[in-house]
Amino acid sequence: MMTLHWSPRSPYVRKVMIAAHEIGLADRIHTVRTTVAATQPHAELMRINPQSRLPTLEAEDGTVVYDSPVVCEYLDSLHDGPKLIPAAFPERLVTLRRQALGDGMLDTLLMWLGERFRPAEKQSAPHIDAWRVKTRASVDALEQEVPALAASRFDLGHIAIGVALSYLDFRFPDERWRDGHPRLTDWHAGFDARPSVRANVPVDDL
Amino acid sequence: MMTLHWSPRSPYVRKVMIAAHEIGLADRIHTVRTTVAATQPHAELMRINPQSRLPTLEAEDGTVVYDSPVVCEYLDSLHDGPKLIPAAFPERLVTLRRQALGDGMLDTLLMWLGERFRPAEKQSAPHIDAWRVKTRASVDALEQEVPALAASRFDLGHIAIGVALSYLDFRFPDERWRDGHPRLTDWHAGFDARPSVRANVPVDDL
Repeated sequence: MMTLHWSPRSPYVRKVMIAAHEIGLADRIHTVRTTVAATQPHAELMRINPQSRLPTLEAEDGTVVYDSPVVCEYLDSLHDGPKLIPAAFPERLVTLRRQALGDGMLDTLLMWLGERFRPAEKQSAPHIDAWRVKTRASVDALEQEVPALAASRFDLGHIAIGVALSYLDFRFPDERWRDGHPRLTDWHAGFDARPSVRANVPVDDL
Repeated sequence: MMTLHWSPRSPYVRKVMIAAHEIGLADRIHTVRTTVAATQPHAELMRINPQSRLPTLEAEDGTVVYDSPVVCEYLDSLHDGPKLIPAAFPERLVTLRRQALGDGMLDTLLMWLGERFRPAEKQSAPHIDAWRVKTRASVDALEQEVPALAASRFDLGHIAIGVALSYLDFRFPDERWRDGHPRLTDWHAGFDARPSVRANVPVDDL
């Protein structure tokens, strides 16, 4: 068994779990609930990942693997079915660029969320404004990309983008990202109905 | 020619430029000075990268490539010499995990630096403490990894780690990361002497 340092709230962990489900490896992963917070590094996790980040995977031979793009690539190397990351360019590049956009959206949303946990007098309106601008621009760009997304085989790029949009639902419902984005709304409904996605619904247990 | 949206201060851009130099592709990259700031998304850059991040590369056929790990992997596909990212596991996994550690250190240091630009009353001491803890833990871990680093062929993992340590010198000299880390100090001196690294020294021009 592999061991995954895991949280039901982390969207990067969700990416990995959806990927594992899609390629039939979820049963080989033992998840360990691990709580990391911006102001509370996790001392035990830092022994194997000094940046105290989720997801961190321990492979069966003890090899430590992080962050989520590396964990996903590693898992994708362990099976012989259709790959989540195409081996050949230019398809590979499209998938990796989409993953970078989804992960970038999540990086921005995590900073934005973290801001809310600061005392009110330490929150920065210019930062929040910039995060909102980047988020809206990303959703606008994805609306334009829907035909290409829908035409390409479901892979890690789709997972990263779907998870990022779902994280908007989970933490930023007031942003109403679906407004003015009908094609992306439809595409995301299809994403959200996949068994791999249904099996890994975020839970706010704190 | 490829076009790289570039800044002399961005460590992620520096990673890409060092990588391009190492594999002999620097002459094929036209750099365009692009200024992005946490609170000032770059409207023109966002047309091709809605997260407004550096580096963003436009390939010769117009394909847009980001973030830095994807740009590096793309550049590494364009030449026939020794690769910066090994094709085969487990070597590939070691390189990608090292890159994730170097990039993770940079993510932390960029947030820490950004905090300094906030008004004093909006700066958060618990966040700064946590960033310092993660940074010190990362340097401690790298000190232990020096024998393995030195024994493996120079690749993208070494570049990411070297750039992260150099960024500590550039922005956080008071942290004195070399104290208590003699092997890492020696390893970094060798990194810093490489022509590719010398050709891409950070400049604070603002």
